[in-house]
Amino acid sequence: MRYEEFTIEGRNAVMEAFRAGRTIDKIFIQDGCQDGPITTIKREARKQDCMIKFVPRDRLDQMSGTGKHQGVIAYAAAYAYAEVEDILQNAREKGEPPFIFLLDNIEDPHNLGAIIRTANLAGAHGVIIPRNRAVGLTAAVARTSAGALNYTPVAKVTNLSRAIEDLKKQGLWFVCADMHGTPMYQLDLKGPIGLVIGSEGEGVSRLVREKCDFTASIPMKGDIDSLNASVAAGVLAYEIVRQRMQGE
Amino acid sequence: MRYEEFTIEGRNAVMEAFRAGRTIDKIFIQDGCQDGPITTIKREARKQDCMIKFVPRDRLDQMSGTGKHQGVIAYAAAYAYAEVEDILQNAREKGEPPFIFLLDNIEDPHNLGAIIRTANLAGAHGVIIPRNRAVGLTAAVARTSAGALNYTPVAKVTNLSRAIEDLKKQGLWFVCADMHGTPMYQLDLKGPIGLVIGSEGEGVSRLVREKCDFTASIPMKGDIDSLNASVAAGVLAYEIVRQRMQGE
Repeated sequence: MRYEEFTIEGRNAVMEAFRAGRTIDKIFIQDGCQDGPITTIKREARKQDCMIKFVPRDRLDQMSGTGKHQGVIAYAAAYAYAEVEDILQNAREKGEPPFIFLLDNIEDPHNLGAIIRTANLAGAHGVIIPRNRAVGLTAAVARTSAGALNYTPVAKVTNLSRAIEDLKKQGLWFVCADMHGTPMYQLDLKGPIGLVIGSEGEGVSRLVREKCDFTASIPMKGDIDSLNASVAAGVLAYEIVRQRMQGE
Repeated sequence: MRYEEFTIEGRNAVMEAFRAGRTIDKIFIQDGCQDGPITTIKREARKQDCMIKFVPRDRLDQMSGTGKHQGVIAYAAAYAYAEVEDILQNAREKGEPPFIFLLDNIEDPHNLGAIIRTANLAGAHGVIIPRNRAVGLTAAVARTSAGALNYTPVAKVTNLSRAIEDLKKQGLWFVCADMHGTPMYQLDLKGPIGLVIGSEGEGVSRLVREKCDFTASIPMKGDIDSLNASVAAGVLAYEIVRQRMQGE
């Protein structure tokens, strides 16, 4: 496992981190804040013997990477990247066929956070991102993930195509999102599956697309080109959820 | 119709505005930019006799409301808010049962933009937002809507509950998103429909929820509370699309 330094900003994100049992090193709270959520955060912090510092709002504004600290910033030990094997293990423990998101160079931290959030709620067992170019697990990603980063393992791989090949040997099928694909309602998306989402603008890269077994499209009934990447990921993921629920 | 002053930022957004036949008053382009998209924008601007000013990057940075102008900012005549009647007319012209999004106090411009984008691609006939509290059609909203604001009418109403009552008289059914509702796959979402999406955090307000005919939930298979508002809107909208396509 690899670790990266990490700050958590905003009340919900900090509370979720405590709730998930994550180790918080230090917590900064805005002077004078004493509403309900802040009181809960203080109580949790004392329970865990974590250092609390009260600072003026200016100080928090300076520290904030997202500009939306809501009066509280926590320094976490680290968010850990998982290994692909941890994701498969997660599926085995739940006794479910693996369901994995693969993100081909998502560059917007809000999209990455929202997709990890969606992966968690759609019951996916993990998210795989490429090591280069794509955005990593920054403060903005953690905040937009609304706590999902505490539960859903995210693995970084050097080469997404190779990761797909390896996972195929474990019995996974891969479907990639592309507007020229087969309408998603016509595909059988049950069973062990990897859902490949491309970057905004460029879509899924050719090398990765060629490794996929199916190409799924979302019906487009409007005038513009494409959905937001995190919305497209949500729509496709929930078509998989629907088909899996029918199969139960 | 009411008008509000408006700037359009970024290459795609400006090109889409030209393509949609929107009137651009004035266009600011970064000194020295002469790649393909910028050349196309200049040609379109000349065709429409619109004033072009070349300015240094600093100047664009100062003017920018989103921080992502990509070397071009256009001053549009205005984005027009539509009336609810325009939305119904849009449905009549297409010969389709009305499909309208109603947003109960979405405060994040990125979510509002992404939802308008989704509304366009899901084939909805328009979007209704409340006049107070919620975010309006700012530059960030236009940019995130990826051009959808040029096609999908957005109406502002004083009171969302009253708008729902009026639309019920026109034969619409209303479904609101709430995690305690009936799983969406079990509801009949065909026919003339209004989809009500609540704000992040607070969800749909009680008064509005009480006016709705159904409450639909998205299956939650994870550990955290809720999807991002624009992702939830996308997932619900596409369940409506799926059911409508089955009925065809």
